[in-house]
Amino acid sequence: MTRIAMLGLGAMGSELARVQLEGGASVAVWNRTPGKAPSLDALGATRAATPDDAIRDADLVVVCLSNDDATRAVLDPLATRLRGKTLVNLTNGTPAQARRMARWASDHDVRYVDGGIMATPEMIGAPHALVLYAGDAAAFEQHRDVLARFGAPRFVGDDPGRAALLDLALLTGMCGLFAGALQAIAMARHGGVAAEEFAGLLVPWLHAMNGLVPAIATSVDTRRFEGGSSLAMQVLALDNLIEASRESGTDTTLLTTMQGWMRACVDAGHGADDLGRLIDVIRPVS
Amino acid sequence: MTRIAMLGLGAMGSELARVQLEGGASVAVWNRTPGKAPSLDALGATRAATPDDAIRDADLVVVCLSNDDATRAVLDPLATRLRGKTLVNLTNGTPAQARRMARWASDHDVRYVDGGIMATPEMIGAPHALVLYAGDAAAFEQHRDVLARFGAPRFVGDDPGRAALLDLALLTGMCGLFAGALQAIAMARHGGVAAEEFAGLLVPWLHAMNGLVPAIATSVDTRRFEGGSSLAMQVLALDNLIEASRESGTDTTLLTTMQGWMRACVDAGHGADDLGRLIDVIRPVS
Repeated sequence: MTRIAMLGLGAMGSELARVQLEGGASVAVWNRTPGKAPSLDALGATRAATPDDAIRDADLVVVCLSNDDATRAVLDPLATRLRGKTLVNLTNGTPAQARRMARWASDHDVRYVDGGIMATPEMIGAPHALVLYAGDAAAFEQHRDVLARFGAPRFVGDDPGRAALLDLALLTGMCGLFAGALQAIAMARHGGVAAEEFAGLLVPWLHAMNGLVPAIATSVDTRRFEGGSSLAMQVLALDNLIEASRESGTDTTLLTTMQGWMRACVDAGHGADDLGRLIDVIRPVS
Repeated sequence: MTRIAMLGLGAMGSELARVQLEGGASVAVWNRTPGKAPSLDALGATRAATPDDAIRDADLVVVCLSNDDATRAVLDPLATRLRGKTLVNLTNGTPAQARRMARWASDHDVRYVDGGIMATPEMIGAPHALVLYAGDAAAFEQHRDVLARFGAPRFVGDDPGRAALLDLALLTGMCGLFAGALQAIAMARHGGVAAEEFAGLLVPWLHAMNGLVPAIATSVDTRRFEGGSSLAMQVLALDNLIEASRESGTDTTLLTTMQGWMRACVDAGHGADDLGRLIDVIRPVS
């Protein structure tokens, strides 16, 4: 049986510990603030007073802390004690942070897997919870079945920064989705439509529009920007969106940003192109 | 058989005319630039030299022009000629523009229905194309079967601005979705992941996150902002997103806007709340 140490019992970490305990693993848990996630005790968690205690008998050390600074503060003093163990870092971080942590682990003979959790805490343990992993492929394979308790595991490459890159890119997509949805809800409510009623229209609409994303992706890769609605036409709709946003007293930043991207493309002579062309202003071609 | 006049043969208008012709309607078409959408001729469209010619024998006049200014320029001279006819305005516009057009129509004994097309031109005629209608309910009902050729029709109320409101709010949601998706694609590509490969992760992820929108909507209506991931935690992830965005050389406006909204809520003491709380900064509560 794999012996797991779980460092960090926040909203996410406590769910990670829970599914391991429910799956029959031996789990030692530690959190900076003692007594977090009391429901884990009934599931048989071993409470550790220090990180050092938590990892002592563990084969697999799973970290889920608030950020990279907190992770380094906890792990740095444990460097020699982690030798030979597998460290799975599920703390949200950047590709650069993941690569630096991988070098640190390598320097101390620690097997390092960096992960990105593509799920909310409520989704942990469900098959539609996706967790991306990158780094030490052999260590990942050895613990694949245990890691699968968190959600569907997907190994995305030996570059330890790859999971973080994809994680942050996916979260960026989520940010846009939620920013747009909340702004849309605010406009609808200003017009007297309750958010729940409006969501009945919004969710299927966003689902349909999400279905256009692969075509946009193809246009970006192939740099063939024909076929969709032209930017010259869409920029006119943006004028209406911004006017309606102003009428409803909502923050226009999201819409003016999109309008600015579109106008830059139209002004550069790409008015007949579709949305994929915006990639050139979001990330200027060097 | 309903005799239709179709004013405007852009990317959308020509599709609207096509599905009516294919459905067996008699359609007179007019466009400011003659000769647009030549494929309509083989389907039996009657070409009109002027808007006046196009509407002469029509029961139902459908307008799909670039914006409100263009629509008024075309329709104002026709006011007396439209008497007793039904005018369905599918030009994208604001609620205020729709209400002004409805008053103009009422002043000239024209039956007015304002519509919002929730579909790309490619989707016109398919059952998953949704078209919102508002205004004269009797006129809508009389022509419901004909209008259903465009896509699933949904009447959303007697207020002639209601379809435009919902249309623009849904487009705002779409803007956020596409802005986020494109920014995410730009970040992934900077990290060496092709957009098409990345879309294989992004589309199911956005689908899963879209499934959280109804809960956010409920939290906005009920002003109970517990249960989701806390803003205090999410704002830390935003720091990573913005750092990764900077590393990849992509425009950070979308992310800094979201971060600003989150920080304002956290600073106001709502760090334990979930995303729905952002509604208070997107549209300040008066």
